[in-house]
Amino acid sequence: MLQNSNSDKNVIWHTSTVNKEDKQKLHGHKSLMIWFTGLSGSGKSTIANALQLELYKKRVSVYLLDGDNLRHGINKGLTFTEDDRKENIRRTAEIGKLFVDAGMVVLAALISPYEKDRQNARSIFIKEEFIEIYVKCPLEECENRDPKGLYKKARQGEIRQFTGIDQPYEEPTNPEIIIDTNVLSIQECVEIITSHLFNKVGLIKKTKE
Amino acid sequence: MLQNSNSDKNVIWHTSTVNKEDKQKLHGHKSLMIWFTGLSGSGKSTIANALQLELYKKRVSVYLLDGDNLRHGINKGLTFTEDDRKENIRRTAEIGKLFVDAGMVVLAALISPYEKDRQNARSIFIKEEFIEIYVKCPLEECENRDPKGLYKKARQGEIRQFTGIDQPYEEPTNPEIIIDTNVLSIQECVEIITSHLFNKVGLIKKTKE
Repeated sequence: MLQNSNSDKNVIWHTSTVNKEDKQKLHGHKSLMIWFTGLSGSGKSTIANALQLELYKKRVSVYLLDGDNLRHGINKGLTFTEDDRKENIRRTAEIGKLFVDAGMVVLAALISPYEKDRQNARSIFIKEEFIEIYVKCPLEECENRDPKGLYKKARQGEIRQFTGIDQPYEEPTNPEIIIDTNVLSIQECVEIITSHLFNKVGLIKKTKE
Repeated sequence: MLQNSNSDKNVIWHTSTVNKEDKQKLHGHKSLMIWFTGLSGSGKSTIANALQLELYKKRVSVYLLDGDNLRHGINKGLTFTEDDRKENIRRTAEIGKLFVDAGMVVLAALISPYEKDRQNARSIFIKEEFIEIYVKCPLEECENRDPKGLYKKARQGEIRQFTGIDQPYEEPTNPEIIIDTNVLSIQECVEIITSHLFNKVGLIKKTKE
């Protein structure tokens, strides 16, 4: 006797009458998932926000999924254990995929410390639609910035499961872009990314000049 | 000693540099969550798809969250128990909120049989941004249509937890729109909804004539 579970054939996939390409055409650009990974304090959210503004100015339909913000909504109830981080990243990637399907450029800024989880996120997108950006910054510098005072708490043992302190951060093995916020300004980081998006990825189709 | 959990003050809300109003301006219309509820076979997905096409033709940035499709992605692993339906609806609403925040019109087509769950979904939106559409159709007619052959299986006991058969469907107490697919054509349903959206809600701001 079957249970009416999602894994069986009783859940039918409805093909939408307006497809991704239609939506990209309406917005005038490709759709992309841009995934920022890096230590707490490395500058992920700051740069993602600055990139969002820059893209918006160029009339790109862009949306930022911020790891912290998602934890107040869709990811409420998830903790920072390895399993819950995995689920956090899985859901964020799935949401990103919906936005890409909706013809948008979606940015995600999450520590996402495990290579395997990031690879899983990448795996649900077609190759050209997923761009991983490693926001590189030495732990010492992140700890020195400590914008939220979290490293201090982690060192004092007030917070556990903190990436870089008592949980590892695995560096990306093959990200599309690496930006080193220890040496680059926010503006320089954004320029590197937009140059990649406009010149390499061809985000906006050039109309006749 | 604090755990680094999402419920504590260590998760900070980042204010986006591009807000909802900016995104609505870019798209040229308001953002909305349009929630279709009704029995399996009532016509939710069909009408939501037809509405999506109609809105797209008017250059509205629109996206359809289909309950069945979501169960292949973000809601993978959830079953049809009351608790899992509740979580299914919670996540769909939270995703809808992200799309509304991104300046889009988002449609959701889910049986969503419990009034309490629909009220919870509504509660995370501001009043004008949530529109509940009850796709009304007698159980006998839905069972007669049985487009996926599910009622037959449910009657034969091959599927359990099936709304209308061995789980209740609670009619919406105060939906913004009721459409009766037992008497109206798809086109008539879409016209009722678009008339509401354009004339009552003012979805697209009229430019000078």
